[in-house]
Amino acid sequence: MVKVRLPRVEWSPVELASRLSRRGIRFNFASGSPDPGLVPLSRIREAVEHVLSEYGTGALAYPGAGGFKGLRVEVARYLRDYLGVSADWRDVIITSGAQHAIKLLAQLLVRRGVRVYVEDPTFYETLAPFRFQGGRVVGIRVTNNGMDIGQLAKAADEGGVVYTIPSCHNPTGVSMSEESRRELVKLAEERGLVVVEDDPYTILSSNVLRPLRALSSSVIYVGTFSKLLGPGFRVGFVVAPGWLRGSLERLEQHDFSTSTLTQLVVYELLRMGVISEVLDKARSTYKSKLSRLIEALNNYMPGSLQFNPSCGFYALVRLGVNAERLLRTAVKFGLTYVPASRFFIGKGPVDSARLSIGVIKAEDIENGVKLLSRLVKDQY
Amino acid sequence: MVKVRLPRVEWSPVELASRLSRRGIRFNFASGSPDPGLVPLSRIREAVEHVLSEYGTGALAYPGAGGFKGLRVEVARYLRDYLGVSADWRDVIITSGAQHAIKLLAQLLVRRGVRVYVEDPTFYETLAPFRFQGGRVVGIRVTNNGMDIGQLAKAADEGGVVYTIPSCHNPTGVSMSEESRRELVKLAEERGLVVVEDDPYTILSSNVLRPLRALSSSVIYVGTFSKLLGPGFRVGFVVAPGWLRGSLERLEQHDFSTSTLTQLVVYELLRMGVISEVLDKARSTYKSKLSRLIEALNNYMPGSLQFNPSCGFYALVRLGVNAERLLRTAVKFGLTYVPASRFFIGKGPVDSARLSIGVIKAEDIENGVKLLSRLVKDQY
Repeated sequence: MVKVRLPRVEWSPVELASRLSRRGIRFNFASGSPDPGLVPLSRIREAVEHVLSEYGTGALAYPGAGGFKGLRVEVARYLRDYLGVSADWRDVIITSGAQHAIKLLAQLLVRRGVRVYVEDPTFYETLAPFRFQGGRVVGIRVTNNGMDIGQLAKAADEGGVVYTIPSCHNPTGVSMSEESRRELVKLAEERGLVVVEDDPYTILSSNVLRPLRALSSSVIYVGTFSKLLGPGFRVGFVVAPGWLRGSLERLEQHDFSTSTLTQLVVYELLRMGVISEVLDKARSTYKSKLSRLIEALNNYMPGSLQFNPSCGFYALVRLGVNAERLLRTAVKFGLTYVPASRFFIGKGPVDSARLSIGVIKAEDIENGVKLLSRLVKDQY
Repeated sequence: MVKVRLPRVEWSPVELASRLSRRGIRFNFASGSPDPGLVPLSRIREAVEHVLSEYGTGALAYPGAGGFKGLRVEVARYLRDYLGVSADWRDVIITSGAQHAIKLLAQLLVRRGVRVYVEDPTFYETLAPFRFQGGRVVGIRVTNNGMDIGQLAKAADEGGVVYTIPSCHNPTGVSMSEESRRELVKLAEERGLVVVEDDPYTILSSNVLRPLRALSSSVIYVGTFSKLLGPGFRVGFVVAPGWLRGSLERLEQHDFSTSTLTQLVVYELLRMGVISEVLDKARSTYKSKLSRLIEALNNYMPGSLQFNPSCGFYALVRLGVNAERLLRTAVKFGLTYVPASRFFIGKGPVDSARLSIGVIKAEDIENGVKLLSRLVKDQY
């Protein structure tokens, strides 16, 4: 009889919803994946072929700690060219996706009792590793200008970690104002707070402020290529300040989980200039899909929208009925979303849902919202 | 000023040595990588092409928790056909390499004060995650019959974790006897010990006993395709008993780090029958390389061998001089190995070195050992 006590780990509502989305789903409002129509498949095939001929078995060798140097250099260039962030390539640590980066950061920065200030609501899946480490998660109100820095200033003593998605926030869609960004960086400096900036979506939008990391090199920046090139590569990165970099590189040895092959393929895609090839279309597509979603919600589910989404994939709505229960019905009609109560730090509203425009076809959005609205009305 | 206290994380001696091995090294005794001449590169290219045409952007979608079902089924079949292990596909959890699996297991099974019994010496890199979790690592003597189960029986109270590499042990090369295996499984049952079996090398040898997992389905088995197909994929797996499976799947969500693309490629390679294509040659090559190493050590460095390596890649030797210091000289002569003092649980002998036959050419082994012997003599 085994005597080990396992820590509690929960299923993510995103994972649960995505399992439902695998088959026969026309109106997929659940997935945070990019639009399959925008993934540059033929360029990816070219890149893979090139990597295997050019590097041979070297493409299948063990990865080195911190990531492949060529990729780190290309990421530093990408940050400068597309996001206005200047960083030395040595500050760039490659991880197997942004989620992996957050987990490593949680392991380094958080232990029992360390306070972690987060937007309330925030992305469930990144919250989980902070909680697993025993962190004391403190929710900070979100407004249409992003995290309420005034409230953060009241809540935050000396020390602690701030985890934020300042741009195109998940799940609310809002972005932090210029003023709030400056206040946050200043507050962090004064109180010795470590700021972790999770930023998958800025790149997808042309009218977003530069990342927090552009305002302060103390900010720990987490990025990914999942939303532009495809999440299946599992290639993300951290831009780490000097005091953290070595520890992060060394901790990455404990799992060594970033594939050499996919690192080289992403490196090749960056060198081929694929980012600039796909960027304009991605930006206009997601912008127009998000507008359609907002319009449809206003037309068919007035009052349901909880925030004004400015960019990215997401909108948070109140359905007025239990979102988990409704989902079971919705799936039968070919529609999914993510029940969002667990995105809240305390007990979140059970009727809240995260709708995503990532993978759904633009022309299906209006009909999807109509259907959702009908399903909600049938529940009354 | 940042107020977070970082946990201590050390560089692995394997990583440090492998950095030295990148260029101009003819006698690479450091690397745990497979022989590049055995990696089935053309079949891998076929598999990649097939995956990208067959699955399209689906090959670049987010992975699901636990891994791609098709791969889990193929791994269960592989375990049955090649290792005599019977497991349901649901018990197979895909991870991004065996190292990632060990880290996830450490997070679930180990917290401050939990005792982790390991072979002394053992593989440094897997030790590190157990220590990071605050586990109390207890070293158990290794003999030519593997872990000394008598000593384990004296040391182990109720509860705790046993981490073992029973076959072709890293770094000593020994394998656990049939009798010790039975004793270990029985002891674990009686005392409520959790046994984690790390088994990268059994598949590479034709005269090795079946894994512990074949004796008891309570054993947690960790496997990898790194040594047969190439470590750059980062595809490994755990065979988990029922009480652990759900937690492991859920914890894997915290990093989601196993690439969909590489999972599909490994799946395709398994389906293509590539394992059976490469197996005979791999087995005979590694066997003959290890024999050559042992012979050369006996001829040119008599008495240096600490154990009788039976299979796998490694031999542990005593050089009689400081192994870290000598390495700096050796590199200039085009030779590397891994200084092994930190493979020991307490203060290990500073003159110990791990020699690997993974990547070095068979015909270079004798000259490499001659050179090493000359360098050692020059130190006196």
